[in-house]
Amino acid sequence: MTYSKVKYDGLKKLCHIVFEKFGFSQKDSKTITDVLLLSDLFGIESHGIQRLVKYYSEIKQGLIIVDSIPKIVEETPVSAVIDGQAGMGQLTGRKAMSLAIQKAKASGIGMVSVRNSNHYGIAGYYAKMAEEAGLMGISMTNSPAVIVPTFGKDAMLGTNPIAISMPAEPYPFLMDMATSVVTRGKIEVYNKKKEPLPLGLALNKDGEDTTDPHDILYNVPKKLGGGLLPLGGSKELTGGHKGYGFALAVEIFTAVLSGGLTGNYVHLDGAGGSGTCHFLCAVDYGIFGDKKSIENRLSKYLDELRNSRKAKGAVRIYTHGEKEVESYNDKIKNGIPINDATLHEIDDICHFFHINSNDYIIKVKD
Amino acid sequence: MTYSKVKYDGLKKLCHIVFEKFGFSQKDSKTITDVLLLSDLFGIESHGIQRLVKYYSEIKQGLIIVDSIPKIVEETPVSAVIDGQAGMGQLTGRKAMSLAIQKAKASGIGMVSVRNSNHYGIAGYYAKMAEEAGLMGISMTNSPAVIVPTFGKDAMLGTNPIAISMPAEPYPFLMDMATSVVTRGKIEVYNKKKEPLPLGLALNKDGEDTTDPHDILYNVPKKLGGGLLPLGGSKELTGGHKGYGFALAVEIFTAVLSGGLTGNYVHLDGAGGSGTCHFLCAVDYGIFGDKKSIENRLSKYLDELRNSRKAKGAVRIYTHGEKEVESYNDKIKNGIPINDATLHEIDDICHFFHINSNDYIIKVKD
Repeated sequence: MTYSKVKYDGLKKLCHIVFEKFGFSQKDSKTITDVLLLSDLFGIESHGIQRLVKYYSEIKQGLIIVDSIPKIVEETPVSAVIDGQAGMGQLTGRKAMSLAIQKAKASGIGMVSVRNSNHYGIAGYYAKMAEEAGLMGISMTNSPAVIVPTFGKDAMLGTNPIAISMPAEPYPFLMDMATSVVTRGKIEVYNKKKEPLPLGLALNKDGEDTTDPHDILYNVPKKLGGGLLPLGGSKELTGGHKGYGFALAVEIFTAVLSGGLTGNYVHLDGAGGSGTCHFLCAVDYGIFGDKKSIENRLSKYLDELRNSRKAKGAVRIYTHGEKEVESYNDKIKNGIPINDATLHEIDDICHFFHINSNDYIIKVKD
Repeated sequence: MTYSKVKYDGLKKLCHIVFEKFGFSQKDSKTITDVLLLSDLFGIESHGIQRLVKYYSEIKQGLIIVDSIPKIVEETPVSAVIDGQAGMGQLTGRKAMSLAIQKAKASGIGMVSVRNSNHYGIAGYYAKMAEEAGLMGISMTNSPAVIVPTFGKDAMLGTNPIAISMPAEPYPFLMDMATSVVTRGKIEVYNKKKEPLPLGLALNKDGEDTTDPHDILYNVPKKLGGGLLPLGGSKELTGGHKGYGFALAVEIFTAVLSGGLTGNYVHLDGAGGSGTCHFLCAVDYGIFGDKKSIENRLSKYLDELRNSRKAKGAVRIYTHGEKEVESYNDKIKNGIPINDATLHEIDDICHFFHINSNDYIIKVKD
């Protein structure tokens, strides 16, 4: 695949316009764009602008309902359950984390469990919302099942990322990771490049280790068997049951608490919502002591980790969130790399909506 | 190693007496015994009665202060910070989770971060306390550093287990797992059996994959380099940075929030406490809706996982907590397997305190 670097500002303006054309209000279009492009800025291509056409087809299909309003169905001073009413995941996710932040500011902790939503983009966006508000943020989501339980061969759990963020200097702490060994997006990349998968990432329909990315991309959505391995791989010796446990915990926080669908029922066919569930939590860590001291302790520890001795052949130890900040700064300055297939899809959408894509897709010379 | 099965009841009585001899009150001796033997009943030998002599030596050394009283140093309706005052970890852990449960019952959620404690046994004990109170429980602890960060060669994070428990039928959900690939205890077993480690579990002092268990057991406490790999292994491809992230998150909840020591400073030398930190959280999931419905949803999903199709060659899919219940029932009935070295240590302690061990160590015929 060939990539071109495209200026962020133009892309942002284009997304605003396109989401309005999809039927969203100006405000909502800005929110969705924010989530979508932060993913590209962080270097997570799979959850960025390349999903534009996918979202559009889910809107046309009626899976995502553009004008639905998420509804608070349970509420206490420290918690809420939101029914996403099959709306756009980014809007429901943002509303849920805003509510969690509001509760954390008033009561110290806010936990919001969400049912009946759709794909909400990168989990890290919402954890970062809390971080930017001077709180600790936790964000999780389920998704259509793709992880197999240890010793199983059917996908029964979503990729189920867990994101945690908290202020620190010079980089905030931000971990955001699927509870599978690799994301479904990584499998798609191997497939597009026609390269075999390394062993230990995924199982074929009989539950055996596979090197064929097609096995997962074709079999799993059709529920023929196989799927991604949980973090830790296929064996208990390498801790596969631990990744499976983390994925299961995400199903509990998102689907079980909210009364929504667990990953094995979340679906992308039909209309009226995928049933995706989220969990958003904000903690005002001031309830545990002086905020500045807590932040300083975190910053010091992250610094100690980065500066600890390197393994033979390694040059750098990262803390979580550091790569994202570097990627963000680079891409704001030098453009976002977009592959030709995605650029072609954007052109098609622009053509359909009578938008002149050349006004917005500004390529940067390398 | 040879094992003998020993009756639970006698062992419990013996532990009560021995801990009183160590200087603990009758009530505290019962609490410590409860935590210790639940580990053996769950089949987690490393955290069970085999630690008796280790705890005694830490008491004599002054690392564990027998009569110290944990102190609440920060408190809100949903949170607290406890200073363990270098007391026995099990007592501080139990006090902290009791407080979290009390807060959850009053306010929906209770989070207690603990500093200046000592080894608290299995993390799962405290999560299970909340489960038995009809709540969701979360329990984490740090420990002297043994996990290396991705691309590093120095142990900078504890084994940092995360335990989560919640009521379900017929088995409660109970996950309890170190964020390393395997626990330090597993490395000790390879060492005792003089077997090489499988690759992918640990690094030598240069930060290279090692098969020598001695590398970790000798080098790490002396801070010479090397340690356990985080869940996911040494590479980003296999998700090593994810296990590293989970271990780091545990340091944040335990040490950063409480103002205690991060794993790289927790120590077993000297007196006045190891500086170990814990985090205990209880959630009354009734804040998210009807409790019975939530429990039923969890039970149904766990059942679906167990009954999903098996991988080729596999016969059973477990959910977390199931093995523990089976082990518990078996050992209550058929005795707890104890290895000869531990039995010998128990005999020595009994002799020292003028206890007739034969009154309590009742071996079961196989």
